[in-house]
Amino acid sequence: MFETAELGRSLSKDRFEELEPTLRVELLQLQQALRKAPFPVILVFAGVDAAGKGETVNLLNQWMDPRFIHTRAYSKPSDEERERPELWRYWVSLPENGRFGMFQSSWYSKPILDRVEGRIDDAAFENHLARIASFEKTLTDDHAVVLKFWMHMSRDAQKARYQELEADPLEAWRVTEQTWANLKRYDGFVRAAEHAIRRTSTGLAPWFIVEGVDHRYRSVTVATIVRDAVRSALDAYERREAMKAVHNGGDLTTLEGPAGSDAPAESPSMPHLPTVLDSLDLERSLDKRTYRKRLKKAKARLAVLAREARDRGGSSVLVFQGWDAAGKGGAIKRLADALQARDVRMHAVSAPNDEERAHHYLWRFWRRLPRAGRVAIFDRSWYGRVLVERVEGFAADAEWHRAYAEINAFEEELVDHGIVLVKYWLHISPDEQLRRFQEREKIPWKAWKLTEEDWRNRDRWHDYELAVHDMIGRTSTRVAPWTLVEANDKQWARVKVIETYADALEARLAEVRGAP
Amino acid sequence: MFETAELGRSLSKDRFEELEPTLRVELLQLQQALRKAPFPVILVFAGVDAAGKGETVNLLNQWMDPRFIHTRAYSKPSDEERERPELWRYWVSLPENGRFGMFQSSWYSKPILDRVEGRIDDAAFENHLARIASFEKTLTDDHAVVLKFWMHMSRDAQKARYQELEADPLEAWRVTEQTWANLKRYDGFVRAAEHAIRRTSTGLAPWFIVEGVDHRYRSVTVATIVRDAVRSALDAYERREAMKAVHNGGDLTTLEGPAGSDAPAESPSMPHLPTVLDSLDLERSLDKRTYRKRLKKAKARLAVLAREARDRGGSSVLVFQGWDAAGKGGAIKRLADALQARDVRMHAVSAPNDEERAHHYLWRFWRRLPRAGRVAIFDRSWYGRVLVERVEGFAADAEWHRAYAEINAFEEELVDHGIVLVKYWLHISPDEQLRRFQEREKIPWKAWKLTEEDWRNRDRWHDYELAVHDMIGRTSTRVAPWTLVEANDKQWARVKVIETYADALEARLAEVRGAP
Repeated sequence: MFETAELGRSLSKDRFEELEPTLRVELLQLQQALRKAPFPVILVFAGVDAAGKGETVNLLNQWMDPRFIHTRAYSKPSDEERERPELWRYWVSLPENGRFGMFQSSWYSKPILDRVEGRIDDAAFENHLARIASFEKTLTDDHAVVLKFWMHMSRDAQKARYQELEADPLEAWRVTEQTWANLKRYDGFVRAAEHAIRRTSTGLAPWFIVEGVDHRYRSVTVATIVRDAVRSALDAYERREAMKAVHNGGDLTTLEGPAGSDAPAESPSMPHLPTVLDSLDLERSLDKRTYRKRLKKAKARLAVLAREARDRGGSSVLVFQGWDAAGKGGAIKRLADALQARDVRMHAVSAPNDEERAHHYLWRFWRRLPRAGRVAIFDRSWYGRVLVERVEGFAADAEWHRAYAEINAFEEELVDHGIVLVKYWLHISPDEQLRRFQEREKIPWKAWKLTEEDWRNRDRWHDYELAVHDMIGRTSTRVAPWTLVEANDKQWARVKVIETYADALEARLAEVRGAP
Repeated sequence: MFETAELGRSLSKDRFEELEPTLRVELLQLQQALRKAPFPVILVFAGVDAAGKGETVNLLNQWMDPRFIHTRAYSKPSDEERERPELWRYWVSLPENGRFGMFQSSWYSKPILDRVEGRIDDAAFENHLARIASFEKTLTDDHAVVLKFWMHMSRDAQKARYQELEADPLEAWRVTEQTWANLKRYDGFVRAAEHAIRRTSTGLAPWFIVEGVDHRYRSVTVATIVRDAVRSALDAYERREAMKAVHNGGDLTTLEGPAGSDAPAESPSMPHLPTVLDSLDLERSLDKRTYRKRLKKAKARLAVLAREARDRGGSSVLVFQGWDAAGKGGAIKRLADALQARDVRMHAVSAPNDEERAHHYLWRFWRRLPRAGRVAIFDRSWYGRVLVERVEGFAADAEWHRAYAEINAFEEELVDHGIVLVKYWLHISPDEQLRRFQEREKIPWKAWKLTEEDWRNRDRWHDYELAVHDMIGRTSTRVAPWTLVEANDKQWARVKVIETYADALEARLAEVRGAP
C-alpha cells in the first residue's frame, strides 16, 4: 500500500513557483464559494513522524483565509475531555457548514498507537475502526466532505531526515530520544496504519497516501486533492440545486452555465511524476541458458507444491493484469504447464455479458471461485473496474472510487478462507509495446491479436499509468499484495511469475503443515 | 426493541379479505415495473422459530409471479459451499436486476447461532456483523433494494403455539425435542438478535421487526412494507431518469406525470392497530397519601445515590419526551428537587439556532454532554429528529430513517463511557390532553403555555403515535431502553420517573463499587 509513496517524488522549485499562484487563487475562490454551501470540509492529517503533517496544515492556513478554517491538533486528553466519551472532543470541534476543519493527530492516533504498543488486541482495534467508520459515515451522510491524508515516508528516508536535522544546530532540538524510539516501532506502526486505512477508506471518506519527503511535492499534492474534491462537491451541490429549481418549474438555462465556483477553464495540473511503475528496472533479463535452467527448476518446484496443495484442499486464485502485449498469455501458459490441467480453470475476462451486466460487477468473479484444491487463473479480472472502466469512463467516478474498498473486502474474504491469492501486473515500456505491436502486424498468425483498440489504448498510456499507480496504492495490501513484474524481457517475466506463485504456495503450505 | 412486536397485533378475516386483492394487484404491477429497472430487490427473512418466516416467503411467492423470484433457504453448507468463502453461497444466488430475491436462514443465521452457543465471543461476533454490513453496503451502493424482516414472537406466544401444534395430530410432527431445546435458548437468541439488528440496520438496508403470531397481520405487514419500498425505489429511479432526460435537453413534462408504476391513487392502508403505547395502563394512579409517602421516599433515596455518583465521577443524561401537556416539566421539577442544583444542567430543546443548524443535528447534543459527576436533563432531545421533524416533514425521509442508527451509535458512546442514560416517554390519552388544554386556557398563569401549535399537533395525534411506536421499536435497546410512563395521573408519573432514575443509578453504582 505504501509503495506508491516511496518513489522519491519531488517538484523542482521552478515548477512549484509556476503552480503555486494559481492553486492559491483557486483554493481561495473555492473557500469563498464554500461559505454559502450547506456542508463543511473536514481534512484529517495523519502519518509517520517528520512527513510534514503540521507543515502542510500550516501551509493550507497560509494559502487560504484562516478566518474560515478551524484547525485542531490533539495530544493527551484534558480532564474536561476525559470526562466525556472519546469522540466528544472531535464532535464539539467540528466546523460549521461552509467552513474548513483541519484535524491533526485526531481520531486515528489513539487506536493505532494503542495497537502498536499492544494495549489493545486485533479485535478491539477492529471495533475502534468500525466506530470511526460509523462516525465518519454520520458526517458524510450529512453531506460533509471528508478527506484523509496519510503523510508517508520510508523508514530509510525518515532516518536520513533525522540525521540531517541533528547535524543542523538550529534544528537539532527537534530530534529527541523519543524520535529514535519511534523509529524502532516504524514497521509495527506502518502495519497498523495500513490496516486502519484499508478498513476506513470509503468512497465518501477516502484516504490519500502522500509521499512526505519533498515539501514542494507534498504541498502541491495535498492542495490539488483538496481543490478537486471541494470543487466537485460544490459542482454536485449546485447541480442538485439547479435540478430542484427545474423540478419546481424554474429556468432550464441555469443548468447550462458552468457549474460551481468560477473555475478557470484549465487549472494547471501536476507535472508527470514518477509512478510506482517507474520504480521497476525494465532492463532485467535472463539469457537463454539461465532462463531454461531456472524455468525448469521453477516449474518442477511448483509442480510439487501444487500437488501438495491439491491434496490438502488448498485452492489458489491468480490474477494477471498488464499492458496489451505485455506477455500475459505466454506467462500463464508456462505457469499452467507446471499444473495438472484438470485442476486449473482459466478465465479470460472481457466485457460482461447480459446476465453479468444485470448483477453486481463482482458477481461474475464470485461465481468463478475455485473449489478446494483447484486453481483459478484470471486473464484480466475485477480490476477492470479501476482500470479500463475508469479510464474509458464506463464506470462513474463514485463507482470506481468505491471499488477499491469493495475489492479489498472481496480479496480479504478469499484470503481469510485460506485461498492463495497472487496478483501480477506485467509491465513493459511504451517502446517495447510498439515494437511488439509492429512485430505482430508482420506475423500473419499473430496479427489477429492486434486490434484498433490496442492502438487507441496506447494513446491513453499516461491515464492508464495513473490508474495502475492508484490501483497499486489502494489494493496492494499485506493481505493481498501486488507483484510487479518487469516484462520487457519475456524470459525474466515468466520465471518471476512462476517463482512468485511457488513462493506464495510454499508460505501457505508452511502455515497449513504447522496447523493441527 | 422487541416490545413493539409483542402487542398481540392481529387482523380480522374480513379486514384481511378486504386488503388482500388490492395488495396483490399492486405487488404484481410493481413486479412488472421492476423488470425494466436496473436493480434487484433483496428480501431477508430471519426471526424466532414458528414466527412465520417460511410461510411469509411462500405467501409472497403465491401473491407474485414466482418466475421472477429467486427463493433460497440455507441449512448447513454443502461440500461445494464449504470449499469457498462463507459469503460465496449468497453471492452466487443474488437475483439479477429486475428480480426479487428472497433469502431465508441466510447470512445472519450462523453468526447469531454461533454467538448464542458460545462458539464465538463478542468481538468475533462484531467482526462478523461488520462484514455483513460491508456486504450489504456493496449491494445497496449498487442500488439494490435490501429489506430485512425479523419475524418475532414472545417466548410465551411461542410456547403456546407449540402446545397448540402438539395437540393437533396432523401438526404434532412439527414439534420435536429440538423445538423445546431452542425454546430454552430463547433469551440468549433474542439478545444476540437485538445486537445484530442494531448493528446492521442502516438507512439503505433496514430491519423491520414484525409480530409473527397472527398470520394475517404479518402477511399484510410484510407485503405493505415491500410494496412501499419497491414503489419508492422505482419512483426515485424514474425521477432520476427524467432528470437526466431534462438535463440532456429532453421534455420537461415527463417530470409531471405520475412517477413510477401505475400506482392507484389511493392504496388501502393498514387499519389502526395497537401501538406500543396502547399497552400502557393509563388508569394507574396514586392517591394523595401514598403519593406523598412514596415521593418523599424516592427523593431521599435518589439524593443519596446521586451524591455517591457525584463523588465517584459518574454522570447522567436524562431524556424527557412526551405529548404536549403530559407533565414533563412537573416531573423534571420533582426529580431535580432531589439533586444538588450545581450538579444539574437543564436543557430545554426547541428549534435549533443558526449556529446549530450549520452543524450536524447531533452536534448540539454532543456539546451538552455533562462533565464527570454531573447530570444533564434534556426536556425534548435528539429524538425530535424522528418525532416532530419526521411528522412535520422538516427532515427528509432518508434523514430520519438513518437517524435511528445514528442515535443508537450516539447513545452507545455515552453508555460505553459509563454515563447513566435514562429515556422517558410520558404518555397520556387524547382525552386527558384535551382536559389539560382546556384547563390551561382557563387559568391565566398557565394560558401562555398553550399555543396554536399545540392544537395543530393534536390533529396529527395518530401520526405522532406511529412515530413514537417506531422510535421505541428502533431505539429501545438493552444498552439504552426507553421507560414508558403512564402519565394520566401526574402523581403516578412523577414517582415512576424518580424511582426509575434511582434504579438506574443504583444498578450503575453496583457495577462501579464492584470494580477494582
